[in-house]
Amino acid sequence: MMKHVNAGIIGLGRAGQMHLRNLMTIPEINIIQVADVFIDKISGKLNDLGVTNQTTDYHELLSNPDIDTVFVFTSTDTHEQIVTDAANAGKNIFCEKPLSMSHDEEASLDVLRAVKKNNVKLQIGFNRRMDPQFRTIFENVREGKIGTPQMVKITSRDPDLLPHDLIQRIGGLLQDFTMHDFDMARYMMGSDISEVYAKGGTLIDPTLKDIDDVDTLALVLQFENGAFGVIDNSRRAVYGYDQRVEVFGSEGMLKAENVNNSTVELYNDKREELKKPLPMFQKRYKEAYTEEMKAFVDSILNDTPLVAQGSDVIMAQRVANAAKKSLDTGLPQKVNTKFSLD
Amino acid sequence: MMKHVNAGIIGLGRAGQMHLRNLMTIPEINIIQVADVFIDKISGKLNDLGVTNQTTDYHELLSNPDIDTVFVFTSTDTHEQIVTDAANAGKNIFCEKPLSMSHDEEASLDVLRAVKKNNVKLQIGFNRRMDPQFRTIFENVREGKIGTPQMVKITSRDPDLLPHDLIQRIGGLLQDFTMHDFDMARYMMGSDISEVYAKGGTLIDPTLKDIDDVDTLALVLQFENGAFGVIDNSRRAVYGYDQRVEVFGSEGMLKAENVNNSTVELYNDKREELKKPLPMFQKRYKEAYTEEMKAFVDSILNDTPLVAQGSDVIMAQRVANAAKKSLDTGLPQKVNTKFSLD
Amino acid sequence: MMKHVNAGIIGLGRAGQMHLRNLMTIPEINIIQVADVFIDKISGKLNDLGVTNQTTDYHELLSNPDIDTVFVFTSTDTHEQIVTDAANAGKNIFCEKPLSMSHDEEASLDVLRAVKKNNVKLQIGFNRRMDPQFRTIFENVREGKIGTPQMVKITSRDPDLLPHDLIQRIGGLLQDFTMHDFDMARYMMGSDISEVYAKGGTLIDPTLKDIDDVDTLALVLQFENGAFGVIDNSRRAVYGYDQRVEVFGSEGMLKAENVNNSTVELYNDKREELKKPLPMFQKRYKEAYTEEMKAFVDSILNDTPLVAQGSDVIMAQRVANAAKKSLDTGLPQKVNTKFSLD
Amino acid sequence: MMKHVNAGIIGLGRAGQMHLRNLMTIPEINIIQVADVFIDKISGKLNDLGVTNQTTDYHELLSNPDIDTVFVFTSTDTHEQIVTDAANAGKNIFCEKPLSMSHDEEASLDVLRAVKKNNVKLQIGFNRRMDPQFRTIFENVREGKIGTPQMVKITSRDPDLLPHDLIQRIGGLLQDFTMHDFDMARYMMGSDISEVYAKGGTLIDPTLKDIDDVDTLALVLQFENGAFGVIDNSRRAVYGYDQRVEVFGSEGMLKAENVNNSTVELYNDKREELKKPLPMFQKRYKEAYTEEMKAFVDSILNDTPLVAQGSDVIMAQRVANAAKKSLDTGLPQKVNTKFSLD
Repeated sequence: MMKHVNAGIIGLGRAGQMHLRNLMTIPEINIIQVADVFIDKISGKLNDLGVTNQTTDYHELLSNPDIDTVFVFTSTDTHEQIVTDAANAGKNIFCEKPLSMSHDEEASLDVLRAVKKNNVKLQIGFNRRMDPQFRTIFENVREGKIGTPQMVKITSRDPDLLPHDLIQRIGGLLQDFTMHDFDMARYMMGSDISEVYAKGGTLIDPTLKDIDDVDTLALVLQFENGAFGVIDNSRRAVYGYDQRVEVFGSEGMLKAENVNNSTVELYNDKREELKKPLPMFQKRYKEAYTEEMKAFVDSILNDTPLVAQGSDVIMAQRVANAAKKSLDTGLPQKVNTKFSLD
Repeated sequence: MMKHVNAGIIGLGRAGQMHLRNLMTIPEINIIQVADVFIDKISGKLNDLGVTNQTTDYHELLSNPDIDTVFVFTSTDTHEQIVTDAANAGKNIFCEKPLSMSHDEEASLDVLRAVKKNNVKLQIGFNRRMDPQFRTIFENVREGKIGTPQMVKITSRDPDLLPHDLIQRIGGLLQDFTMHDFDMARYMMGSDISEVYAKGGTLIDPTLKDIDDVDTLALVLQFENGAFGVIDNSRRAVYGYDQRVEVFGSEGMLKAENVNNSTVELYNDKREELKKPLPMFQKRYKEAYTEEMKAFVDSILNDTPLVAQGSDVIMAQRVANAAKKSLDTGLPQKVNTKFSLD
Repeated sequence: MMKHVNAGIIGLGRAGQMHLRNLMTIPEINIIQVADVFIDKISGKLNDLGVTNQTTDYHELLSNPDIDTVFVFTSTDTHEQIVTDAANAGKNIFCEKPLSMSHDEEASLDVLRAVKKNNVKLQIGFNRRMDPQFRTIFENVREGKIGTPQMVKITSRDPDLLPHDLIQRIGGLLQDFTMHDFDMARYMMGSDISEVYAKGGTLIDPTLKDIDDVDTLALVLQFENGAFGVIDNSRRAVYGYDQRVEVFGSEGMLKAENVNNSTVELYNDKREELKKPLPMFQKRYKEAYTEEMKAFVDSILNDTPLVAQGSDVIMAQRVANAAKKSLDTGLPQKVNTKFSLD
Repeated sequence: MMKHVNAGIIGLGRAGQMHLRNLMTIPEINIIQVADVFIDKISGKLNDLGVTNQTTDYHELLSNPDIDTVFVFTSTDTHEQIVTDAANAGKNIFCEKPLSMSHDEEASLDVLRAVKKNNVKLQIGFNRRMDPQFRTIFENVREGKIGTPQMVKITSRDPDLLPHDLIQRIGGLLQDFTMHDFDMARYMMGSDISEVYAKGGTLIDPTLKDIDDVDTLALVLQFENGAFGVIDNSRRAVYGYDQRVEVFGSEGMLKAENVNNSTVELYNDKREELKKPLPMFQKRYKEAYTEEMKAFVDSILNDTPLVAQGSDVIMAQRVANAAKKSLDTGLPQKVNTKFSLD
């Protein structure tokens, strides 16, 4: 008899609905109940999908004894409260980063303390770790196929600018976007980032200066184990979502190019190219989103390690904060790599 | 409100279960009931998936007025009877090729007459037509990107030999395997095959001669519109499932290479290659299996054209029969391209 | 002290001049004298290159005792006479195929008998054998990397139509163009072609029928060792010179795609493609032309095997003749694989 | 009548001999005389190549009135003297970088003043600018295919460590190796580097610290026009010579991957990879070495612009010096971009 995770889902906005569809394809997950403050607007759509147990109040869901695990897809400003409540209700938790709106990490550490006290599992949504391409690199690095890692190289470019008000809500380029690259860099190298230098500017949208943000970044990383890293970012790559990772080591190199929408080649006199990088994160990381959920289910049912833990989000945030300071001061910045909840 | 197809599924062996999981990911499909003569063996697994309305008797399913569409995944020898019964019960039908065990096409034509008389839709499982790569070629050919098609080139190699008794049940290389290539060739060129020459032998398993089969084939096709084709087949490609299509025309060329399991490149002193062609048809054509079902649903709900019709299976079978005769006689063979149910 | 080949060059038309420049880059070759009936027209150009010993009369060159090796780049209709004369003068000979204008092979065999009698080396200009890509396939096949070869697949398409009068002088598609593919097929498989089936037509230029030629061909080959082959040809690929070879065997597959003019990728919103197959045989086979000469020099100086011998041109011609008969009769044709000069 | 460059070559060590062979393939170059202090050791080899006018004294060559252009391939410590003498003798000059051993640029500026005063042409051997791949990027950037350049990304890794004494003679990683990348970055972006940050260490050979060098580098560049750059370097890539360039801009991206030794793909059960990056600079930049010479010839004969001028070597050196200071201090460093010989 198959073991199951009995799940509640909190937050069914656009992201939540994407995750819901992915969760429904995993046989080990029973979706017991869903909660959203605006549940009425999407009730019909949910019924069509067979998800009929709906509520506006996430507390109702947390008090449901049939539910052992909750997936939190609400907006960032609610994470701190909901994750703490879920931990205190004894549920395992999946939550997108970050855990708190506050750049000061104490608020996030408090959330992690609640998780620890209640002895529940918390997985952070660093989905790129489970992207099949990057995961293949990760595994081959761990198997020693390239010897000792010496350099990680990440190119990460978004297809287009975000609205200024959204940036002000979710954080600037370093704290919303590059943060994923900092996590990827740590993950690949198996070592913490101990120093960061960031240089950037507004080459695309000069008005970003008004909200203290940039659209173009070049960074150098120093890892605790002696290795190095380079990252380059842009807010707007006209050709799509550009996501590439390379790890170089003493015995070789592993690299993942962009995933294209097609393998078909057209040769005509114009030599038009049909292959294009996938345009949006939803498509590019579709498998990653499902794989991170499968890994979380596996961790719950079989006690395998979590893909990304609470400490990972703290560490990535510290680097983002240090990089922001580097950008502001023009000087490289040290990063604290010690982590403790005590 | 979303329109739905209310489906019954007949046949839940290995193939049927794969299709069932795919069908469950399509929101427009409600699975009302499933039937299999050995339903007891898989009842628990089906319950786990939430498919609880089960029967051993497909007649019960066909008489269920809530069902408008049936998916037939039973063994080939039952197709003739079940598709005829389903047509007479007024259900739309999806069925894998062929429609009959008989190489004489009269039995298949009788099935198609029942479909026509009852005015139901019948889609044949030529799934490769909906493979995203091949579909991209098809669409670009239709859009005139390579001008007038002059040559189609298909390489199709299976990963390994089949057991002799299975071959005897489902047909030899030409009639089970190459038949898909004949259909692909017709589909790409938009023209019927009017002549075929086949040359082959037993380079892998000489005992295949005992059951009148070959493991290696080289073919030349002549199309009614004047174009040409070449096909090469093998029963055993040690590197995986090799499925490539190329169309050449007056203004250019389109080609689809194999789909690999990874885009990651490993450079070390051994220069080991991580990219491998997908090993099995289930994985290689996973998207194609889902896409053909989506297209069928779309045809039912919105009356769009079927991906592959009854006449398509008759045509592919005629070429397979002619190719077998060519192999036996050493001479090219004409193929009848006239089709009528009268 | 470096050993040298002391060379005379006969024929300095466009092809001859291309070869001359290649020969000048090989340090082991001293160019002693050149001959061309129209030497006056190009005398200045030759002087600029430092090639000052010029004559209109190739007999003068053949009687020059300082010359041990001649390179024959004259038009096909002169090969029979000049190669025979050169053999009788005791010179080693490099000559483009074919050895005679006559489709009847007796004339060519007479040339080979002269070569044998005088015990000189004769290398035939099957330059593609020394193309670095195809040579890599050849060597890996010989090293057993793909086990026993079972299928060779050749796509060979020219960039554009030839003038009708040129075709009438040098032979039709099968005898001028496909002949190179027949030689490549034999070379790769290490076995003679024992049967051929050719199907073709005039899809590009219907007036080719007037001179008994075709512009599009699809062929099946049977090899003496049991293996098979497929070839497809076209007179006009709008995207350039299309030259691809693939060998499939019991333990794997080797394939060479086209050589592009660039590795640079351009990603913009039009996704324009910069990589294009090399457009002309002179550029595509530039290295092959030099490598075949180096191999010939090596064979002369160190008695290594010739890249392509007289018997190779006879064999390729036999297949071309049989293929022409197949095209005319619509039936496969056997090919005589016995070779003897007695 | 073809116009010619009448050339003298000074320095025929390993590099000089490679260049000599390249120069001999360019018809517009007449090699009048060669000079090397150890000419006796290679005299036989030169005679074999037909280069018989040899001397040990480069002054003799400079006073030869038949020579209009000299190619300087001697060791770096002689550049300052020889280039100055050649300029004062009124010869056009090709010379490898740098112009002087001194890190202080005054010595180099004195050389350039002699060149200017005598009104001769001086081309610097920044051969990579004429690599066909990088040149294709350059030209497409100039044609506006990617809009305004915003980021340049260079990966440059050598196949293996150099001996410590050689490093001490030619300079450390930044000043010998990365200097080429600084020049490439300037060339691609069409703007000077105004600030540099360098981070590095000894991950391969810790004893490099003894000679004040590193083996691994990560750098961030700021350009005068506002754009950015990232560079990563390693002394030892076990898989060969890794040379990649990418330019990203407002309307797209151009990138050049490594050039492989083959396009052949081998698919067997081990999935062994035959394609390897070219292993050595001599092979990787073979075409670049010839193309830079052709461009120099073209500049002399037709007064087209030089590929790389004296000011280019000064600018690259300044960035290298600033990067070294950044490495030593841990702080980013400004670079002076003003250039004047007055």
